[in-house]
Amino acid sequence: MSAALEALQQRLGYRFQQASLLARALTHRSHGADHNERLEFLGDAVLNLTISRLLYDRFSGSDEGDLTRVRAHLVREESLHRVALALRLPEVLKLSEGEARGGGAQRPSILADATEALLGAVYLDGGDAAAHALVKQLFGELIDTTTIDNWRKDAKTELQELLQGKRLPVPSYRIVATHGQAHAQTFDVEAAVPALQLSSMGSGRSRRAAEQEAARQLLDKLRAPPAR
Amino acid sequence: MSAALEALQQRLGYRFQQASLLARALTHRSHGADHNERLEFLGDAVLNLTISRLLYDRFSGSDEGDLTRVRAHLVREESLHRVALALRLPEVLKLSEGEARGGGAQRPSILADATEALLGAVYLDGGDAAAHALVKQLFGELIDTTTIDNWRKDAKTELQELLQGKRLPVPSYRIVATHGQAHAQTFDVEAAVPALQLSSMGSGRSRRAAEQEAARQLLDKLRAPPAR
Repeated sequence: MSAALEALQQRLGYRFQQASLLARALTHRSHGADHNERLEFLGDAVLNLTISRLLYDRFSGSDEGDLTRVRAHLVREESLHRVALALRLPEVLKLSEGEARGGGAQRPSILADATEALLGAVYLDGGDAAAHALVKQLFGELIDTTTIDNWRKDAKTELQELLQGKRLPVPSYRIVATHGQAHAQTFDVEAAVPALQLSSMGSGRSRRAAEQEAARQLLDKLRAPPAR
Repeated sequence: MSAALEALQQRLGYRFQQASLLARALTHRSHGADHNERLEFLGDAVLNLTISRLLYDRFSGSDEGDLTRVRAHLVREESLHRVALALRLPEVLKLSEGEARGGGAQRPSILADATEALLGAVYLDGGDAAAHALVKQLFGELIDTTTIDNWRKDAKTELQELLQGKRLPVPSYRIVATHGQAHAQTFDVEAAVPALQLSSMGSGRSRRAAEQEAARQLLDKLRAPPAR
């Protein structure tokens, strides 16, 4: 095995039993028949499950919608591309001469796919536990520093979409009160959906924040299970 | 634990250590706060990976595109709904009275979601191996009887889409020869893309089959790695 692949295994914290799997994971389809696309198919699913489990444990109070949004953010090409650069995959990718000349080793989609293929290869070589440990190592910091609110859909947008889905008019917002000094004001806002005879209050340090809070409260009311 | 849940575990071939997980997996959000949506989030990913692995092993010669198409077929609502009926989930689902009166226990989307939630619960309770065994039990026959050609995209369609993506004209097909008796003829068809100076031959027992084969050959040429 080449020194470059030895170094990659150091960075991965994983040593392959089957070196051929590692080589295949790093081979772009332009290079030859034994390429990484099937491993990428598998790795994509490995990543999806491992990230799902990590998010499930970390955000124990979050609902499915929020978890799904955060997961989509974490498994997108940009995140995978960043991981590929941290692993220095451009140095070890095998591409056809044409692809290589065209800058293929720097192309985000090619690098993201190779990252997934590597995960698939580790999963086949070392099983669930090895793959889980690797995902945790590669994405752990990203997950630890993620706060779910960043990826929560804007509550006003969500409320509006939900009402439009029921063919109801958009909600109204009005400032009910303001408190405090000019530079440290708090706003109380009411969000109302007259057609449903529903309204909610929200408070915040800005009008926008108060509206968001009022919309979130209204959403919760709309989604509460019907009284039994 | 109720007799109905004991019977369900018999059908699953899995006995829960944490009965609360089983109960939660069967609770629709209309019934109360401790519902199955987070388990469904996890179960969806468990199903996706396990099916991916089973397909990867079974169709060792198939490319990523074909595997992805078959997977999408296997994990869609209709397949999950059928599994839910085989497990007799309508008998054990917990819904609000309103949902139950409205026929919620028979609704395909509710049943499909509960099937995924059950997989998520088994994964949390028994780990990867237990979840893998259950998916294999529930979907194994479906996978064993699936032939990848059923889910392969029609080659002529695929070729046309690929050429349109490159802003090239559609390919032409012509019968070059026919062999054999009237009731057992074989057709030889040529598919050509003059703009690329490419053509391929295909043979089949019908004109349509021969065209498909010729299109498949042309696709393979178009996708072959460039000569190095």
